[in-house]
Amino acid sequence: MLDYNVPGGKLNRGLSVIDSYKLLSEGKNLTENEVFLASALGWCIEWLQAYFLVLDDIMDGSHTRRGQPCWFRVDKVGMIAVNDGVVLRNHIPRILKNHFREKAYYVDLLELFNEVEFQTSSGQMIDLITTLQGEKDLSKYTLPVHRRIVQYKTAYYSFYLPVACALLMAGENLDDHTLVKDVLIEMGTYFQVQDDYLDCFGDPEVIGKIGTDIEDFKCSWLVVQALERANEDQKKFLYENYGKADPACVAKIKALYKELDLETVFAEYESKSYEKLISSIEAHPSKAVQAVLKSFLGKIYKRQK
Amino acid sequence: MLDYNVPGGKLNRGLSVIDSYKLLSEGKNLTENEVFLASALGWCIEWLQAYFLVLDDIMDGSHTRRGQPCWFRVDKVGMIAVNDGVVLRNHIPRILKNHFREKAYYVDLLELFNEVEFQTSSGQMIDLITTLQGEKDLSKYTLPVHRRIVQYKTAYYSFYLPVACALLMAGENLDDHTLVKDVLIEMGTYFQVQDDYLDCFGDPEVIGKIGTDIEDFKCSWLVVQALERANEDQKKFLYENYGKADPACVAKIKALYKELDLETVFAEYESKSYEKLISSIEAHPSKAVQAVLKSFLGKIYKRQK
Repeated sequence: MLDYNVPGGKLNRGLSVIDSYKLLSEGKNLTENEVFLASALGWCIEWLQAYFLVLDDIMDGSHTRRGQPCWFRVDKVGMIAVNDGVVLRNHIPRILKNHFREKAYYVDLLELFNEVEFQTSSGQMIDLITTLQGEKDLSKYTLPVHRRIVQYKTAYYSFYLPVACALLMAGENLDDHTLVKDVLIEMGTYFQVQDDYLDCFGDPEVIGKIGTDIEDFKCSWLVVQALERANEDQKKFLYENYGKADPACVAKIKALYKELDLETVFAEYESKSYEKLISSIEAHPSKAVQAVLKSFLGKIYKRQK
Repeated sequence: MLDYNVPGGKLNRGLSVIDSYKLLSEGKNLTENEVFLASALGWCIEWLQAYFLVLDDIMDGSHTRRGQPCWFRVDKVGMIAVNDGVVLRNHIPRILKNHFREKAYYVDLLELFNEVEFQTSSGQMIDLITTLQGEKDLSKYTLPVHRRIVQYKTAYYSFYLPVACALLMAGENLDDHTLVKDVLIEMGTYFQVQDDYLDCFGDPEVIGKIGTDIEDFKCSWLVVQALERANEDQKKFLYENYGKADPACVAKIKALYKELDLETVFAEYESKSYEKLISSIEAHPSKAVQAVLKSFLGKIYKRQK
């Protein structure tokens, strides 16, 4: 179960802890033990991610993940996958206790993981309520709703958490770093917009899955933008064809996205986000923190997968 | 979601925190705030229980719980219930942070809940692997397997956790109380054996439900005892009739249990367990701790429901 679900991702989140910690330590050479501890925290985030993905795939009725069948679709697994997700999750405090029990920041670490898991499950809840509960209703899909889902469901654990781990290891108090948090949440939002874009316009061979946001009636940035730009006829067309399993309907939606030139809208969003982020980052007093945030941004800017 | 899933149980676990804490404080009158804090911990256990039940019912494909449909069977809920379970769970560290952040035992409390959740999910895993995965195979059902499932899946969170919470509030170090832990795990095991026994031999009018362990191919203490005592013919008979929905098969299994005199086997197990527990309890140096453990035992000894 662990071998199936923990590895196989890009490890961006986990590796970010080590990268960030190195940058925060500036010239100082890290000891073997420091690198080990940063790696342990990195793996905690990867296990947290594995837990979310196992459960999300069940709730979304997904088929593939990282180029293989979703865990709950594997023979003899089925709904046991719910508990497997919980087992994955329960190893995180064990790893923390094993390696950080004696550190001054141990409680902060426990609280950080607790808080971030709470935020993520809250984001998932808003997403599920908006997307699944009740009748399919596109009028619920607006930019502020999309933003809130993304912020809670993805940005906290994917962007803030790795840097917050590194800051704690570097002896910082997280209360002193609200600007860092804000920038990372903004970056996470940008990342998820890319994700929504790639789900439709990305190469399945490259991203390792076949996007189904349209079939699944997802509150995707693309449909939100389409709704903002559509005339009455196009809106009617969206209401009629969005969220249908029929491949013909999916093709019609994709054609409308092209007609509304969402590819250009996305390219513009991408460059504007980038500029805004860079200027926020350069306002930060610490060069080391700037380096951390720029390194993050560099990894995701114009990504194809 | 909270109103549907958190209340409605017997509240044994939650109330035990307050009862135990009162006994540990001996003559001392508790302040309003102390009772409030013990109650907050009691509710943490009840929320933990709600989380387990919501997820267990999904995994077992159950229909009813506490006299109403299981949460995931409620209209418009479905698999969203997986995340609802996680949301329930994520409130526990929030309650702990809100009310215990400044206490000397705050870290111990966080670690206790983490450890007990890990043990419970491990027990659930062993149970699911033994009972559900692969073909129905009675040869997997042995006394050590039954014991291990019960200990991890039920005893830690139902018996050890409430008393451990009370001990922490009373300023005790849990490392000094391994005997208390061992006694409570033993009591939890005894409690589950009673549960298995009552499922078949209890009065449905008294226990408030009609047992289906035989139909459900459960790893019950009764079938494990039957397998231990059966000759080759009786074993074959068990393999052929256990886990069938057909009432005739269920009746045959019950007849075999009577033939093997499992009622006497249970009565002997019950009195032997009781004696063993009492002598362990009386070996404890503290009269207050003895009172806590005896109070627990008194609540379950020879229970009919």
